[in-house]
Amino acid sequence: MADSQLDHRVLERAAEAEDFEHPEIYDEEGELDQGFLERVRDAIHAEDADRLRASVVPLHDSELGDILQHINFDDRQGLVRLLGEDFDYTALTQVDEAVRLEIVDAMPNAQIAEAVRELDSDDAVYILEDLDEADQKEILENLPFRERVRLRRALEYPDESAGRRMQTEFVAVPPFWTVGQTIDYLRDEADLPEEFTQIFVIDPSFKLLGAVDLDRILRARRPAKIEDIMRETRHAIPATMDQEEAAQIIQQYDLLSAAVVDENERLVGVLTIDDVVDVLQAEAEEDIRRLGGVGDEELSDSVLTIVRSRFLWLFINLLTAVLASAVIGLFDATIEQMVALAVLMPIVASMGGNAGTQTMTVAVRSLATRDLDIYNAGRIVRKELAVGLINGVAFALIIGVVAGLWFDNLGLGEVMGLALIINMLAAALGGILIPIVLDRFGADPAIASGAFVTTVTDVIGFFAFLGIAAWWFGLSSSL
Amino acid sequence: MADSQLDHRVLERAAEAEDFEHPEIYDEEGELDQGFLERVRDAIHAEDADRLRASVVPLHDSELGDILQHINFDDRQGLVRLLGEDFDYTALTQVDEAVRLEIVDAMPNAQIAEAVRELDSDDAVYILEDLDEADQKEILENLPFRERVRLRRALEYPDESAGRRMQTEFVAVPPFWTVGQTIDYLRDEADLPEEFTQIFVIDPSFKLLGAVDLDRILRARRPAKIEDIMRETRHAIPATMDQEEAAQIIQQYDLLSAAVVDENERLVGVLTIDDVVDVLQAEAEEDIRRLGGVGDEELSDSVLTIVRSRFLWLFINLLTAVLASAVIGLFDATIEQMVALAVLMPIVASMGGNAGTQTMTVAVRSLATRDLDIYNAGRIVRKELAVGLINGVAFALIIGVVAGLWFDNLGLGEVMGLALIINMLAAALGGILIPIVLDRFGADPAIASGAFVTTVTDVIGFFAFLGIAAWWFGLSSSL
Repeated sequence: MADSQLDHRVLERAAEAEDFEHPEIYDEEGELDQGFLERVRDAIHAEDADRLRASVVPLHDSELGDILQHINFDDRQGLVRLLGEDFDYTALTQVDEAVRLEIVDAMPNAQIAEAVRELDSDDAVYILEDLDEADQKEILENLPFRERVRLRRALEYPDESAGRRMQTEFVAVPPFWTVGQTIDYLRDEADLPEEFTQIFVIDPSFKLLGAVDLDRILRARRPAKIEDIMRETRHAIPATMDQEEAAQIIQQYDLLSAAVVDENERLVGVLTIDDVVDVLQAEAEEDIRRLGGVGDEELSDSVLTIVRSRFLWLFINLLTAVLASAVIGLFDATIEQMVALAVLMPIVASMGGNAGTQTMTVAVRSLATRDLDIYNAGRIVRKELAVGLINGVAFALIIGVVAGLWFDNLGLGEVMGLALIINMLAAALGGILIPIVLDRFGADPAIASGAFVTTVTDVIGFFAFLGIAAWWFGLSSSL
Repeated sequence: MADSQLDHRVLERAAEAEDFEHPEIYDEEGELDQGFLERVRDAIHAEDADRLRASVVPLHDSELGDILQHINFDDRQGLVRLLGEDFDYTALTQVDEAVRLEIVDAMPNAQIAEAVRELDSDDAVYILEDLDEADQKEILENLPFRERVRLRRALEYPDESAGRRMQTEFVAVPPFWTVGQTIDYLRDEADLPEEFTQIFVIDPSFKLLGAVDLDRILRARRPAKIEDIMRETRHAIPATMDQEEAAQIIQQYDLLSAAVVDENERLVGVLTIDDVVDVLQAEAEEDIRRLGGVGDEELSDSVLTIVRSRFLWLFINLLTAVLASAVIGLFDATIEQMVALAVLMPIVASMGGNAGTQTMTVAVRSLATRDLDIYNAGRIVRKELAVGLINGVAFALIIGVVAGLWFDNLGLGEVMGLALIINMLAAALGGILIPIVLDRFGADPAIASGAFVTTVTDVIGFFAFLGIAAWWFGLSSSL
């Protein structure tokens, strides 16, 4: 017998397909095996449903998701059509939004409703939430009353809230039951969640009283009262709480699952750690992308979607680059008299930009993990200034000597070293203060800090270098 | 009664301290409450152990870790000393390495041994692995035989392997036991892990046969045989497997815990999902830091440690910046004749750098999540080239007009637009190919791609712009 109803279903199907062996779909590098992928494509092109079923029905939903992600549009549609009822819709929760919508949009609403009935409520919501309201409504109307109510309630919670990610299937018992009664109930009740790790304890109005992990139940004697072995829930999650915040609570307290409650503290669902892992991954991913100046784009997005999503960031960068150029423009007369300045000025700006990015990266992540807050900010700013000063002096010496020898002009090396120290200090200050200020004003520091920090280091870098040079060598400028 | 032995102990201690109420240590922003922190500091400065105990003993280990992270060296030492036996050493797994080593280094080995005995094996290994070998040995010798053997075995596995992160406490039963026998065993056995979510099934030589989730046991009737309700383990993790790979398996298959086996497929431990969450977070964190040009530094590292860790990256950046300057140097005569080129050239380089960083960020993450591999690389390269071309043309038009008007020289705008298109295409190619090539050669693309990509966009940007300008306007250059 299999672990869960899902696995059970899968194994039954696999047995029908007379291919019980689990196929090796990943190679040693952990990449999708190309031979396997070829066999799947061949079966689709040959319209051979039996052969296709034998290959993909035994797969885990995440493996099927990987396959969907690696074949093209036509093959995806073919796969879903050929598998028919044997297509495991949970796989849709494992693919990019673009791929998911592509598959779902090609399906009649009645078929989606059929699929949604088979899914856990959290997976169903995951698929439904991307559809437009008219489709959502039509699909919900095709569902039995109880499921409709559950899904509608979950969909009414805000985007990216705990209520959206929760599973509405859970086991709950009254506090006065004994362990024996509880075990008997679990043995007899047919309509249990596919998997669960704790049992919730509620009063008659569904108000959450506490929870018992299954291992506590198994260790206790039958006559023991549930209320005596339960622990009070310290970390009940309001359904409207942002999913990232909820995920951080579950991570911090090493919970396997947490109760989700409505505004009256009634139990409405359970948030499980496997969803949390995905949320935390997605949030870290988001930070990386935002720091890199790319939005929510996915590898499978179309060229035009990608162009649009990157355009804004490049446009902001253009504005800051023009600002830096305007600073250089102030010194065009200076450069005309000493063209070596034009050759060397990118070095000063680039070193500052990199040092600023280093500081900013640390600051953005420390803010995200709450290691950095306004109370220890003073200490961290002083530390960053010290780091900037030391590395500034070190590189000022290196660059000063190199530039002095290169252009056979020691004064030029001295000017450059001085400008570099100033810019490294500006980089340290900008790299730490800009994210803190953005965070303070409620903006996501990951998304905007980069542009501001490099603006600071470009402007200060060019200004310090060209300005000091003009003054040092007595050259003219527009100042 | 409390959920786990740990909580139980904590609650007992709290009750002794006559402060059972769980204190509110976070404010509404989720930041450590400064009032609470002040009370802790006051108690430490007043050497008032009872008051300190009342505040911090009821805390979760992660909360105590947060406190340790937010107070200074002297207060940390004072806190550990004043709490004595009541200090929850698990908190040491929740702080930066620098803070952990600082606390552990101030402790005699006998006291560390005492602490280690109280910890779960995975937490104990986490603390021990950072110590030098002599200290490790002395501490292990202070432990009872069974624990010593377990910890030594875990420490013998490579750094960052599954064997290092696993918990060596688990529940295992033979396949021929019934559910009834298993439940009776769990009720009578005193020496069980503090928490567990599945029971492993092994043969007499400890070879892993399968596992049963606790909810399957609770649903089954007493006479049912374990071998009939167990599922075969498809995802046993070799103890030598890298922790990140192990974490990805647990995440992909939504496992709560996975069996860890030695080279003879004997069960040696269990890897739980809460450790996996931390590993995945740490790995995403690592990628962010590497993309930002900072190594493994932590917020609590000393100034000199940070200086050293950032120096190498800045030095590499210096070399690439000098290379870019050398390219400009080829055109010093050109610039001397038309100084506007010096004013505008940073825009071309900077736009390319940003576009390249965008592409690279997507490529690095897609490689990390295995969404990008050599089989779909061709398609992605074509897509990136298309994106680069479209955004290149768009910005060429914008910049061309702006530059043409700014310097009242339409030719200059045309040259700049052309150079920009070339550099955006170079950025697209470099941004995607450099990470792929680094990955192919076994290097971490996150750590090195940035330097290479900006070198490409700086060099091509300056060369294209100044070169085209020299040819277009018939200016002299060193070429």
